[in-house]
Amino acid sequence: MFTAAVLVSSDRAFKGVYPDKSGIYLKEKLTELGYDVVDYSILSDDYDKLKEKLESYVKDEINLVLTSGGTGFSPRDVVPEATKAVIDRDVPGISEAIRAKSLEITKNAMLSRATSGLKNKTWIINLPGSRKAVEESLEIIAPVLEHGLGILLGIADN
Amino acid sequence: MFTAAVLVSSDRAFKGVYPDKSGIYLKEKLTELGYDVVDYSILSDDYDKLKEKLESYVKDEINLVLTSGGTGFSPRDVVPEATKAVIDRDVPGISEAIRAKSLEITKNAMLSRATSGLKNKTWIINLPGSRKAVEESLEIIAPVLEHGLGILLGIADN
Amino acid sequence: MFTAAVLVSSDRAFKGVYPDKSGIYLKEKLTELGYDVVDYSILSDDYDKLKEKLESYVKDEINLVLTSGGTGFSPRDVVPEATKAVIDRDVPGISEAIRAKSLEITKNAMLSRATSGLKNKTWIINLPGSRKAVEESLEIIAPVLEHGLGILLGIADN
Repeated sequence: MFTAAVLVSSDRAFKGVYPDKSGIYLKEKLTELGYDVVDYSILSDDYDKLKEKLESYVKDEINLVLTSGGTGFSPRDVVPEATKAVIDRDVPGISEAIRAKSLEITKNAMLSRATSGLKNKTWIINLPGSRKAVEESLEIIAPVLEHGLGILLGIADN
Repeated sequence: MFTAAVLVSSDRAFKGVYPDKSGIYLKEKLTELGYDVVDYSILSDDYDKLKEKLESYVKDEINLVLTSGGTGFSPRDVVPEATKAVIDRDVPGISEAIRAKSLEITKNAMLSRATSGLKNKTWIINLPGSRKAVEESLEIIAPVLEHGLGILLGIADN
Repeated sequence: MFTAAVLVSSDRAFKGVYPDKSGIYLKEKLTELGYDVVDYSILSDDYDKLKEKLESYVKDEINLVLTSGGTGFSPRDVVPEATKAVIDRDVPGISEAIRAKSLEITKNAMLSRATSGLKNKTWIINLPGSRKAVEESLEIIAPVLEHGLGILLGIADN
């Protein structure tokens, strides 16, 4: 059983302007998929706080970290930058696959700046902010999550 | 109305060996699309000069900068490197989408080293050097330009 | 006639636990395609040794370097990182094209962390570790190799 964390980056959900829907969805879906979701946090779109949180996940050796939101063009969207500051091996194919598949649904998919990468025993994946886009994205990558984590943790074979 | 600049990187067009066709096309097409094209420049394939020019666009808060040329394999092709030196948030999906779509036309599309990214209120996008390839590339990304700029400038909503 | 080198990153092939099959395949295929394969080496998954080897290829002005293996999620998979430390101009479209095409065969393609880039007169391309995946990947990029090298070396025209 892998551990997981869900991190939402959203000024408005943080302030309670509206309820978080994408993070809750990820938390429930990951649990359903058999993950032990040990943390679910909502932060404002703040680079330092996001980076600090991601670093704490790495330190705690949480296997899978899914972020939601903060990957767009707004000056406050800095989740990819916080992620890149934490990882030391990137996994470009995950975000490429999500964007390519999402392009079939909406052209705005090419504006997603999401990234993904590895640090020690943790795999971080950026997902979009909307509930619907998160669901579509997770469906694209779900089939490969366990295999990737298995290799990262030395359980599965290449 | 968004402001825009067109920057051509080409030793030969700069020296007048042949006339620039791709930059002129971009200038006319952007005007047609409703942009206020405030600068159209042809530079030699010189890293320092290209970087300096891109920095001046950022300083002048020009909203959209389209470059043409300098994204290939020639030792003098350094537009992606000059671009990366200026931006602080990358937009990988734009170049991914252009390459993926262009691959349906020519396999050489996978040799394009084009990139795209954001700095302050400016969005820089690298496009190829040939008139035909520029036209095809712009057609791919045109539908998302206004939405991206709107969010970057705080006019549109995520 | 272009020169080429094949570099296999594999702890097990290096120790002789099993014979290298992917590197041998690349060596034979490149020869068949008309390349002068001047080096074929098997190294352990060691960042420093891989980087040093890649640097020696650049110093020797070997035109095309194909690596095999070391692009996955294992903590010892560091070929993309060694490659990025050596190149100064990246060629993202090559790995994007391999992953996109390979996705039609297996979803695990999105886990490939392979990269590609240029340094002086050398073009480095990361390929997967398995014999079958290497064959599929080479088939995807083979049609553009000569054109890319020709421009890099100033023989072909843009």
